[in-house]
Amino acid sequence: MIGLGLLGGSLSLAVSRSFPGVKRVGYAHRASTKAKASELAVADEIFDDLKKSVAGSDMVFLATPIFTFEEMFVGIAGALEPGCIVTDVGSTKAMVHRWAKKRLPKGVHYVGSHPIAGSEQRGVEFSRDDLFEGAICIVTTDRGTDAGAVETVKEFWSRLGCFVQMMKPAEHDRIFGHVSHVPHATAAALMNASDFKELKFAGRGFIDTSRIASGPANIWSDILLSNARNVARGIDGVIRELSKLKKAIEAGDEEGVRKLLDAARSKRNVLIEYKIRKKEIIP
Amino acid sequence: MIGLGLLGGSLSLAVSRSFPGVKRVGYAHRASTKAKASELAVADEIFDDLKKSVAGSDMVFLATPIFTFEEMFVGIAGALEPGCIVTDVGSTKAMVHRWAKKRLPKGVHYVGSHPIAGSEQRGVEFSRDDLFEGAICIVTTDRGTDAGAVETVKEFWSRLGCFVQMMKPAEHDRIFGHVSHVPHATAAALMNASDFKELKFAGRGFIDTSRIASGPANIWSDILLSNARNVARGIDGVIRELSKLKKAIEAGDEEGVRKLLDAARSKRNVLIEYKIRKKEIIP
Repeated sequence: MIGLGLLGGSLSLAVSRSFPGVKRVGYAHRASTKAKASELAVADEIFDDLKKSVAGSDMVFLATPIFTFEEMFVGIAGALEPGCIVTDVGSTKAMVHRWAKKRLPKGVHYVGSHPIAGSEQRGVEFSRDDLFEGAICIVTTDRGTDAGAVETVKEFWSRLGCFVQMMKPAEHDRIFGHVSHVPHATAAALMNASDFKELKFAGRGFIDTSRIASGPANIWSDILLSNARNVARGIDGVIRELSKLKKAIEAGDEEGVRKLLDAARSKRNVLIEYKIRKKEIIP
Repeated sequence: MIGLGLLGGSLSLAVSRSFPGVKRVGYAHRASTKAKASELAVADEIFDDLKKSVAGSDMVFLATPIFTFEEMFVGIAGALEPGCIVTDVGSTKAMVHRWAKKRLPKGVHYVGSHPIAGSEQRGVEFSRDDLFEGAICIVTTDRGTDAGAVETVKEFWSRLGCFVQMMKPAEHDRIFGHVSHVPHATAAALMNASDFKELKFAGRGFIDTSRIASGPANIWSDILLSNARNVARGIDGVIRELSKLKKAIEAGDEEGVRKLLDAARSKRNVLIEYKIRKKEIIP
């Protein structure tokens, strides 16, 4: 387990619950993380040496910020044995597949994973062994991906209680750019556009609309930058819709404003009904 | 009580709890609302005739969409007795003060109210007698407002459990334009910019960021249109911040993106700490 933050820590705890007897080895860069992770018994062994932490592993998970992945691949490449499976929990996938192809040795199999789980909290102290239970996990493959490794990774996430969905990396990044990364950009922009003195009058609406802006800046800057094209296009789409609404408001176009708000409302209601039907939301 | 939706219904129930013995008379335009409101005993009497519903009242509350207010003032003007206090629960205030000045007879006192309470649900069936408990209620006055009427309105909301805060109508509309109406516009734009096929992968982040877009379109189009200038300026501010972030993302400016996300995060964290201290949020 490379990286023992909220995701890495939770994953390690979940492994111990779903795969009892499997030895879990963690890598943590910072002494403070290492100490906290040891105290919480998040892994059986914890190293601050990359090579030591992966030596002899059947599976390696990357759970550090995305822009560290290429360096991590370089750092572990020499210590991995043939047949080892490398995967990750990163929120973008196309760049990671490219780095894996370039940096991992032949015989080591990379498969992309993106479990849709987490919170705006960070740090190993928030780890929970049920964080992935009931979550969707996207598993990504490209043309060179080893079929056996894909089956193992799918089976792994299923045993943790995830619903596995296969995607190509580009498809993944387009979809999550729109449904996850753009909302983050929007929440941050709303926050940055606001006046602190006025914010004390903010109600539950503002609090919810801005919630994800509390996510860790280093993790999210990596996500937005590693999916730059999709995020930029998505931001353009939101700006277009904001401009449309603004134009109708300034024109006093009652029917126009109502139609735009009604379209948003209907679309969201269908979404919520879908999520309730899929039991992803409890009404 | 003119209008028996979620707010009017809840207000009427709250009055019966906080002012036992006070007679509550409702006005409902639609037969179906009238029937539901009677069944739920939301008021002691319910009329579909405006004049009858306000005749002899000490206080009149408007709880219909904002753009009906001027017409309501016209409709009730002839039936109000001198000394009667008229207030409302509308989310914008400057226009309402202007309409009141123009349409209400001398001797009838208008004071603006905006209790910060509600939900994305609508309809009398969601009424709750504790909807206003612990809420901030903004009370607005202009130069002509009767001082005694202001005291009565402040006392009224306090007895319902609200924290009363005084403002001028223009100040109110600027602040709530920014902290409430612009987030609504942003949530609607995010929703409208999204692709329905992709939305099935939306997680809790998207769901929260878009929540308020489920609010009733007719209520919200009135709010946005009756506060057009502040909302338009606020939308410009969000567009500016989105463009700044997009530019940094496209330039691959890691430090720039991180700084913007970090600024948003810090600002929100200070906001949340403030709300927790004020007991508006339970951590």
